[in-house]
Amino acid sequence: MNPEELQKQLIAKVQHIDQVMRDDLAMVRQPRLAAVLDHALFTGGKRIRPLLTLLAASLVKAQSGCDHSPVSAVEPASVARLAIAFEYLHAASLLHDDVIDRAGQRRGRATVNTRWDQGTAILAGNFLHVRAVSLVGNAGGGECLELMAVAIQAMVAAEFAQMDASTNHDWRQSTYFAVLRGKTAALIAAACESGVVIADGRRQQRQALRAYGVNLGLAFQVIDDLLDYLGEPGVTGKALGNDLREGKMTLPLLIAHQQATPTQRLWLEEQIMAASPAQRGEQFSRVRELLTVTGAFAACRAKAEELIAEGLAALTIFPAGPEQIMLSALGQYVLERKK
Amino acid sequence: MNPEELQKQLIAKVQHIDQVMRDDLAMVRQPRLAAVLDHALFTGGKRIRPLLTLLAASLVKAQSGCDHSPVSAVEPASVARLAIAFEYLHAASLLHDDVIDRAGQRRGRATVNTRWDQGTAILAGNFLHVRAVSLVGNAGGGECLELMAVAIQAMVAAEFAQMDASTNHDWRQSTYFAVLRGKTAALIAAACESGVVIADGRRQQRQALRAYGVNLGLAFQVIDDLLDYLGEPGVTGKALGNDLREGKMTLPLLIAHQQATPTQRLWLEEQIMAASPAQRGEQFSRVRELLTVTGAFAACRAKAEELIAEGLAALTIFPAGPEQIMLSALGQYVLERKK
Repeated sequence: MNPEELQKQLIAKVQHIDQVMRDDLAMVRQPRLAAVLDHALFTGGKRIRPLLTLLAASLVKAQSGCDHSPVSAVEPASVARLAIAFEYLHAASLLHDDVIDRAGQRRGRATVNTRWDQGTAILAGNFLHVRAVSLVGNAGGGECLELMAVAIQAMVAAEFAQMDASTNHDWRQSTYFAVLRGKTAALIAAACESGVVIADGRRQQRQALRAYGVNLGLAFQVIDDLLDYLGEPGVTGKALGNDLREGKMTLPLLIAHQQATPTQRLWLEEQIMAASPAQRGEQFSRVRELLTVTGAFAACRAKAEELIAEGLAALTIFPAGPEQIMLSALGQYVLERKK
Repeated sequence: MNPEELQKQLIAKVQHIDQVMRDDLAMVRQPRLAAVLDHALFTGGKRIRPLLTLLAASLVKAQSGCDHSPVSAVEPASVARLAIAFEYLHAASLLHDDVIDRAGQRRGRATVNTRWDQGTAILAGNFLHVRAVSLVGNAGGGECLELMAVAIQAMVAAEFAQMDASTNHDWRQSTYFAVLRGKTAALIAAACESGVVIADGRRQQRQALRAYGVNLGLAFQVIDDLLDYLGEPGVTGKALGNDLREGKMTLPLLIAHQQATPTQRLWLEEQIMAASPAQRGEQFSRVRELLTVTGAFAACRAKAEELIAEGLAALTIFPAGPEQIMLSALGQYVLERKK
């Protein structure tokens, strides 16, 4: 598959996902809720989670090969409805995160809590949450539902752990990666694994796609945390330095802390323990400078690359094919993305 | 069954529900999340929703009579786990409501958004939400899950409709009851109907328990709205007049508006359309006086009684027995409750 062909196929899948979401949301009768959902869901999202479900399902189907196998009996419509549930859940968590962080902008537009109000954002998040669960239950059955429930419980626990890590100024990378596993990787892994389940895949295939998903999710968040220091606000659609202002202990900071001289380390600790978000915000440029000279940004990128490599290695149990090429293209995209 | 015996049996069931919740929540490892859930769930809640699921299930089992019927095969543990899911969902919606209303007190104690922060309250609500769904899926299966999903979607749509009714100063009782159906009655009806489903009840039994649940739920909220004007803050555990301050168009207000003289009506409209919650709050005593003289409070109570009567009438398809007595006692309780 040449790059143009690959691009074309991925775009077609994204458009299909968008259409399935629009069809599903046509049942929303309350006009303001419909407007809010449109604003929250159709803003150039990358649809990575539903793409993963679709690709995982067709990877398994492709391997089973023959058309008479039970997996070819899977309704493509069910797979797509299962897939969009993961986009809904992701959007629900962004709606709630923006309320919690009092964020004003997302993807270059006003957040729902700003354009409407925080009650609207909470309720719209709850609607997507339950709609997701309902779709997973109907399209994917009990096993997929359990996967999703475990992932959401992990997300909530991780958000609590992240708050605690900020409050306690926890400099351990182990805490950071434990938070990432719950916050980002759990849902991405569930999106992958559900695709295998709905295609009636084997245990070994589930494990492979889960390993791919966990590593992709971790790398995704590592790059996200990097972009919060190095991104172009005009491209990412949000202001730089949010994490520092909020006192979030992300990987660039943790690596710098480890690599710094004792004097630098002391200075960095003082900045983080500063009383107010505004005070931390003022030091953004100087903190970023320290992160650059300690090599933290480069080390961060190397870590993300290592994670993607590990994820792709898990997929070698499948014979080469177009799905695998697309899954590695997604890995590459995660590393190269600018927003 | 004499009143003491009835009371004893209900208390035993409530204690059982509490124990099943404690056992279920033992799996929460994150210490702050565990503390928050304890604060949100164990504060003298009345456990009406899980009680209804238990009673509906045993009503159906009692009617099927013989011990060799398929319904006696239902694991009592499953029924209890299904039942607590409705308490979790109720608690989740209170956690989120208190964030949306910026409420400081609930049941005489600081709300989670006050004692911790709003992010904690949102996330704890999400945790209970997904835990509920997971329990319903596992204990009750797809049919119960669908019932719950439909109820939650109705709750969200109703919250939106309620916000719109406040913004537009909608004086119609039809709007008020449509909101109540979604906001309160949908979940209570689902709690009842799920009890029938898990006990393998017939279609007619489902309809009867749903009708009972809808009417009980409507009456419950009508009394709630009455208590917001007439309750004893020392007993209800929250300040009087919240609804008026928030500009909520509740039944006492709507009836008074209908019964008032043209001059009174104009005055009442002016109070509601007042710009700020504080301005409305200042007029609380005078508004309450008008509601008293127009007979609005008495009419409200009569409406609640009518709803309970209608709900109990639906249960006459079942032969008399202890479950029915307890269900009518719950109806009586809803009418007489002071908090």
